[in-house]
Amino acid sequence: MADKTSNAMWGGRFSEGPDAIMEAINASIGFDQRLAAQDIAGSRAHAAMLAAQGIITSKDADAIREGLLTVLSEIETGSFPFSAALEDIHMNVEARLKELIGEAAGRLHTGRSRNDQVATDFRLWVRDQCDAAMDGLGALQTALVDQAEAGADWVMPGFTHLQTAQPVTWGHHMLAYVEMFGRDRARLSDARTRMNDSPLGAAALAGTSYPIDRDATAHALGFDRPCANSLDAVSDRDFALEFLSAASICAMHLSRLAEELVIWSSAQFRFVALSDRWTTGSSIMPQKKNPDAAELLRAKIGRIFGAQTALLMVMKGLPLAYSKDMQEDKEQVFDAADSLMLALAAMTGMVGDMQANRDALRAAAAHGFSTATDLADWLTREAGLPFRDAHHVTGSLVALAEKRGCDLPDLSLADMQAAHPAITQDVFTVLGVDNSVASRTSYGGTAPDNVRDQVARWRKRLSESSPHA
Amino acid sequence: MADKTSNAMWGGRFSEGPDAIMEAINASIGFDQRLAAQDIAGSRAHAAMLAAQGIITSKDADAIREGLLTVLSEIETGSFPFSAALEDIHMNVEARLKELIGEAAGRLHTGRSRNDQVATDFRLWVRDQCDAAMDGLGALQTALVDQAEAGADWVMPGFTHLQTAQPVTWGHHMLAYVEMFGRDRARLSDARTRMNDSPLGAAALAGTSYPIDRDATAHALGFDRPCANSLDAVSDRDFALEFLSAASICAMHLSRLAEELVIWSSAQFRFVALSDRWTTGSSIMPQKKNPDAAELLRAKIGRIFGAQTALLMVMKGLPLAYSKDMQEDKEQVFDAADSLMLALAAMTGMVGDMQANRDALRAAAAHGFSTATDLADWLTREAGLPFRDAHHVTGSLVALAEKRGCDLPDLSLADMQAAHPAITQDVFTVLGVDNSVASRTSYGGTAPDNVRDQVARWRKRLSESSPHA
Amino acid sequence: MADKTSNAMWGGRFSEGPDAIMEAINASIGFDQRLAAQDIAGSRAHAAMLAAQGIITSKDADAIREGLLTVLSEIETGSFPFSAALEDIHMNVEARLKELIGEAAGRLHTGRSRNDQVATDFRLWVRDQCDAAMDGLGALQTALVDQAEAGADWVMPGFTHLQTAQPVTWGHHMLAYVEMFGRDRARLSDARTRMNDSPLGAAALAGTSYPIDRDATAHALGFDRPCANSLDAVSDRDFALEFLSAASICAMHLSRLAEELVIWSSAQFRFVALSDRWTTGSSIMPQKKNPDAAELLRAKIGRIFGAQTALLMVMKGLPLAYSKDMQEDKEQVFDAADSLMLALAAMTGMVGDMQANRDALRAAAAHGFSTATDLADWLTREAGLPFRDAHHVTGSLVALAEKRGCDLPDLSLADMQAAHPAITQDVFTVLGVDNSVASRTSYGGTAPDNVRDQVARWRKRLSESSPHA
Amino acid sequence: MADKTSNAMWGGRFSEGPDAIMEAINASIGFDQRLAAQDIAGSRAHAAMLAAQGIITSKDADAIREGLLTVLSEIETGSFPFSAALEDIHMNVEARLKELIGEAAGRLHTGRSRNDQVATDFRLWVRDQCDAAMDGLGALQTALVDQAEAGADWVMPGFTHLQTAQPVTWGHHMLAYVEMFGRDRARLSDARTRMNDSPLGAAALAGTSYPIDRDATAHALGFDRPCANSLDAVSDRDFALEFLSAASICAMHLSRLAEELVIWSSAQFRFVALSDRWTTGSSIMPQKKNPDAAELLRAKIGRIFGAQTALLMVMKGLPLAYSKDMQEDKEQVFDAADSLMLALAAMTGMVGDMQANRDALRAAAAHGFSTATDLADWLTREAGLPFRDAHHVTGSLVALAEKRGCDLPDLSLADMQAAHPAITQDVFTVLGVDNSVASRTSYGGTAPDNVRDQVARWRKRLSESSPHA
Repeated sequence: MADKTSNAMWGGRFSEGPDAIMEAINASIGFDQRLAAQDIAGSRAHAAMLAAQGIITSKDADAIREGLLTVLSEIETGSFPFSAALEDIHMNVEARLKELIGEAAGRLHTGRSRNDQVATDFRLWVRDQCDAAMDGLGALQTALVDQAEAGADWVMPGFTHLQTAQPVTWGHHMLAYVEMFGRDRARLSDARTRMNDSPLGAAALAGTSYPIDRDATAHALGFDRPCANSLDAVSDRDFALEFLSAASICAMHLSRLAEELVIWSSAQFRFVALSDRWTTGSSIMPQKKNPDAAELLRAKIGRIFGAQTALLMVMKGLPLAYSKDMQEDKEQVFDAADSLMLALAAMTGMVGDMQANRDALRAAAAHGFSTATDLADWLTREAGLPFRDAHHVTGSLVALAEKRGCDLPDLSLADMQAAHPAITQDVFTVLGVDNSVASRTSYGGTAPDNVRDQVARWRKRLSESSPHA
Repeated sequence: MADKTSNAMWGGRFSEGPDAIMEAINASIGFDQRLAAQDIAGSRAHAAMLAAQGIITSKDADAIREGLLTVLSEIETGSFPFSAALEDIHMNVEARLKELIGEAAGRLHTGRSRNDQVATDFRLWVRDQCDAAMDGLGALQTALVDQAEAGADWVMPGFTHLQTAQPVTWGHHMLAYVEMFGRDRARLSDARTRMNDSPLGAAALAGTSYPIDRDATAHALGFDRPCANSLDAVSDRDFALEFLSAASICAMHLSRLAEELVIWSSAQFRFVALSDRWTTGSSIMPQKKNPDAAELLRAKIGRIFGAQTALLMVMKGLPLAYSKDMQEDKEQVFDAADSLMLALAAMTGMVGDMQANRDALRAAAAHGFSTATDLADWLTREAGLPFRDAHHVTGSLVALAEKRGCDLPDLSLADMQAAHPAITQDVFTVLGVDNSVASRTSYGGTAPDNVRDQVARWRKRLSESSPHA
Repeated sequence: MADKTSNAMWGGRFSEGPDAIMEAINASIGFDQRLAAQDIAGSRAHAAMLAAQGIITSKDADAIREGLLTVLSEIETGSFPFSAALEDIHMNVEARLKELIGEAAGRLHTGRSRNDQVATDFRLWVRDQCDAAMDGLGALQTALVDQAEAGADWVMPGFTHLQTAQPVTWGHHMLAYVEMFGRDRARLSDARTRMNDSPLGAAALAGTSYPIDRDATAHALGFDRPCANSLDAVSDRDFALEFLSAASICAMHLSRLAEELVIWSSAQFRFVALSDRWTTGSSIMPQKKNPDAAELLRAKIGRIFGAQTALLMVMKGLPLAYSKDMQEDKEQVFDAADSLMLALAAMTGMVGDMQANRDALRAAAAHGFSTATDLADWLTREAGLPFRDAHHVTGSLVALAEKRGCDLPDLSLADMQAAHPAITQDVFTVLGVDNSVASRTSYGGTAPDNVRDQVARWRKRLSESSPHA
Repeated sequence: MADKTSNAMWGGRFSEGPDAIMEAINASIGFDQRLAAQDIAGSRAHAAMLAAQGIITSKDADAIREGLLTVLSEIETGSFPFSAALEDIHMNVEARLKELIGEAAGRLHTGRSRNDQVATDFRLWVRDQCDAAMDGLGALQTALVDQAEAGADWVMPGFTHLQTAQPVTWGHHMLAYVEMFGRDRARLSDARTRMNDSPLGAAALAGTSYPIDRDATAHALGFDRPCANSLDAVSDRDFALEFLSAASICAMHLSRLAEELVIWSSAQFRFVALSDRWTTGSSIMPQKKNPDAAELLRAKIGRIFGAQTALLMVMKGLPLAYSKDMQEDKEQVFDAADSLMLALAAMTGMVGDMQANRDALRAAAAHGFSTATDLADWLTREAGLPFRDAHHVTGSLVALAEKRGCDLPDLSLADMQAAHPAITQDVFTVLGVDNSVASRTSYGGTAPDNVRDQVARWRKRLSESSPHA
């Protein structure tokens, strides 16, 4: 009977009544336990500083340090007794610390509050994600540079509107993504630098009257400096939003590469063969290779940008300083970060394994008079024709080739000269896809030598920005 | 050594190499086990139909039915051995069924595929959420109607721009939200109707050559009819998007009410007292009640609309029919649905418990010459003054009251007549906040009698749309 | 000098100082003049009702009606003198009316306010967009049904993961989109029904003390009924959000079809030829046809969903009743509606003009042993093999065909029987793409006869839901 | 008759048939004419480089330069004949140039294409917006620093959950926003640096065979260097997305401040009086001041983040290099940038004009035993009580004050000592809101001296980062 009443009152799912609902909506320990290591690091730094400033005794500080190490060990080994009634990671750690070391545990909270504590923990966590994502991007760039080096002179169609426009090289195409992921890395690096201010010691929102040393805790935790305004320190979530913004743009880049891999894997394109590791097959259609991983990567932009949308919406219009709305920040960032790291690793694996189908690429590049612009350019540049005339002559030669069922380099010099007498044997140096790509030597152009130069440049840069310790 | 290589290759987190990464990105059993009941219901309907059509034997159908019931029981009691290697809920159930009943398990898959199976399971799940959300909305509306009935004639300020504009009644304000949540319910009802077509039997994407009876399975599962196009059946996720759209708008309504509760709970407003159940306090500031639940509810729009953003982005530009991208649909919808249900339950609890501060509401309503428009209207309507003159006279009387430090009804008739001789004693029937609200009798207006009529209308509607079985 | 100061003060762009900035951010006449017809219709209905209720004189009502018709005519002919100083369309119309008819113009505003006026105007405008979008969808569905009818039995590959899975028919593929656009239409129809309540007479926020007849104005404007709560009437923008939600899902469908058209137009696929009208070319590469219109349509989901994001974010957390934030509603909806209508018209044109390349479709469908599942099904269904054995036999025959460089139907009966003796000549009735599609006769399956049935069903439905007057 | 047919065909709005629809969806001149100055600057740099490299003659280069200056002048004076048939700004300028200088105009296009041209123009435009936004932020920060300096020691409530938590200073609250806007500026600065690579010379997508000097054009246009990969150069829109990301976060900050201004302007708070310039009033309720500008600013996050959503969605899954989808980039960025600049200017004006109500702020801060934590801290720090005891004593004194109807500093020393004998006269140095804020001297804390230090720090930083030339 009572149950029925509850049902009607709380809607179907919540027979338990208000206390259970409040706990379900309010408790964060289910997810914020991922901040355990950061929480303990922050507390250790704080306790050491309190002792150094004479605010607590060395004995207390020692007990706190030992106790926190025990807690960390319990968490890492899975023996820590998490309690939902204790709401969040901070209370769980604090309660356990008290069990372990008694009264001194209470003194750890001198000169700080949960508001600056959670801001510190979360910032440290997001900073770690920036580092991990930069490493992941470096690995992916390396895989792409490897592909670029191998295929510096492999010719493939350069598309606009998914229509063949001009021949380019495989290496050049790979390097386009190296550039994109390079910007992603730089964005994360900038975000990391900007977020690297310590909220610890901002206390509830106004600072504290204890003679704390915020520089000391900042430096102990690897921050560049303490946050300059306590209200801002506890109410700011820019660091999470900026990470999500950078992650969203990176996921967009991944979606573009993934889309290309899906299209290139189709029976119609056959530009690339993905390895069995990153595809699924059919027991009875042996030639079928579903690019599952590429499709899943293509989709990751959804949840990552969804997280950015969610957090920005949460922050919209919040008065200072702390509001409980902000508890909605963590799950979004956790999920987005996990998705990003997984996507980077999977893309790195796929790119490392994939085999370009050089013949198919070359055949597609040669198709459709893709060097017509090379011919027109030659006519302008070498034969001095006005642009309009060059186009006219080119058009007539393309029409002739089409009629003959051949491509431009298959026409004879006589054919050429019939279209315009100024044409010489030299024209053949720009026709044909190899000649075409070789000629694009302007900085940033697709010529194989350019590609090799860029490979060398990136090798150097990637070796300089080695993974974080 | 090997580890180091892996680290460099896959980025910091993934020392395990490609197989572990592919499993991590590909497996869905971690979340889609929530579809277990739906999956088994779909399989039972399918097996019964196959037997009825003579496609499998009754003996096989019986074995399948018994086996599936065993599986369901194992899942419900927590003894089911979920396996990540078996990727998803469908494979997990199928493999266990085979262990239980042997060869016949394989025949269950006749005339269907995983594509229509997952589409069916997910649709059934989302349909259940529509029902649950409608129930939850009904409970919330009932709580609001209770408040409206109690406070049908409690006067409070009606705000525009958060500035007092005209007096309204508490009941009227509560009923505004009843209207909003009523539209939410209707949207969910429409969505439910639209999604209630059965994908089962669309098979991989093209239908099947087995003589299946899709009407039978549709009706067995409570669908209105089978989907009319097999390609559409397996590639459609409109049902999830429409649920998310409706949920997002509902969450926006919740955010508005939550914002009002936060503002109304401030020391400056004191319009409402939330109960201890939905607030947190301070051990040393006894008067402090933090409206945590209201703030968390205000934030829920973020993750719900974030889910809609995510799924729409995933679906953008996907060619027909099935792409693996679509596996990103479930977690988003699961999380959004959970958030919505929890938010509805918590809001129902908060609204049920909250106590309006009638004195504060009334005092605020009377403040700031909030019945000046009533006076101007009276001058136009009863004394026949042109609009401009009425405004002029009103302005001068407001100025007089301001100078005297009193409100409009505190002025004497003589004062009034000095401003304009056509004013009679009758003017006092519209001054004063009670008179003001009582006078707004136009349909939909704030007069207490109107509120009571609307309470009765909603009581009737809510009793007619009783919770689903 | 003064300029420099202003520059520093207001940032570089705004040398004019605060008044100009406030006008720029506050005035809406630049965009809300699109509501002119709706504004005048609302005023006409209101004036007629006021006279019928005896609130204004017939003479005034006549003057107002005549004046408003003059204003409308001036606006339609472009001679109306819009003024930014008068902020919005309502003030512009009112001021001009006063010039034309004098004092009576002021009485038009009896018993209403700008809040319910703008809510009414905007609702009427959005309602018109629902009608227009439903018409546009009907035209697009008709174009798709025409394609489906012509190609009811044209065989093409049915893709999953952009890999050929099973043969389907062109008509079936076209009809999948007809289903999607049918749901879009239904969503718009539901939205239209739900928004069809009249805010007029809700006044500023509390209703009015004038004896107005809200049913009369509601019906005069084609609404089903007046809004039941005045606070809700002026603070609600659900109607715009629901329109945007439906438009976003529709734009997603358009993006999928557009993506297919882009891929199908590539040199590698050649499944379809778009007409010159919807493509752009190259002066020297005559075979190049850039699918510009398809690409632009694929992108429209961005701005339409961007508008939904914008408006939902604006509405988040707004207290009742009216806040100026809500002025940000119109431009978003105007732009989204324009984009949707344009996209529907362009897609209708593209679909109407496009030519399927039957040979390429058929060749692609036959490629890759796409009927292997048909063979396995035949072995299970007709020869009674267990599923596992059927798959084994099929796999061996596919391997044989691959070795021979032929497809499955090219194998001899002897080859077949060598793989399994139970195979008979009848097996060839399911091999070959025509046989395969013809066999998929389950409801919703791809068989040509099914397609023709669905074409007939849709012809009937489309003729019943004729465009709005 | 014909019209009716068209109507049915294209949907209601488009009676004109396909050509008009294609023009409407395809032409960009309606919006991209805003790129005119950038387009001409890019062309001038390109022409000068071509001449310097000997690719065109000096005479041609001179003619081009003169012609372009004429075109620019025509555009700036409004006499330029824009043509929709010429589609975009590039074609409009080119066509006019040809009219002015003849054949030489054609040679301007040597070694570049519309793809790198539009990428260059748009990048230049966005770069200008970064500069303008940084200037606008600087002006806003200055206005906030002015407020902070004036009110370095004005006491106000520091809120958590919109409940008074601890006293803070007006200056400290203002500086919290200075920090936020400082990060916004830094983000824009980083974005500007990152986008400052020149696409010019990437040509269609592959680079060119002309011996162009991309360094020269890059430097002429103020870029740091040329883009290193031609495919990336034409397919990248990161610069726009990063600008929109930074703008969205900035708009979120604006929404928070705007929300506070709206709440603070309410009759219940009265913390601040906005000037008439940024509010609207009521003719008959003279005390009413609607914070219209603040509400409009609060809403701007919608359209700015809506633009980011739109563009990211457009870019999702686009294969390299150029697709027409990317034409949807400009209107979004134009609108977002305009909104941001207007919002910054309006906020600067509002902040500059606003008057804090010091009495109301102080009264609110003193309310609710806001210094209870100060008392507890004193007991721990000075009297050496354990945390738990300190809280107990504080609670009893708060209860006593509540009973007496006074605040904590109003209790006598005897009262205090009755609660705990260790309390001395010194305790009164931390009670009272002035003492409380004065005591929060930890770095970043709210103490007036800290505020003055930060004001000085910011004055210095703001003077160093003077507006761009």
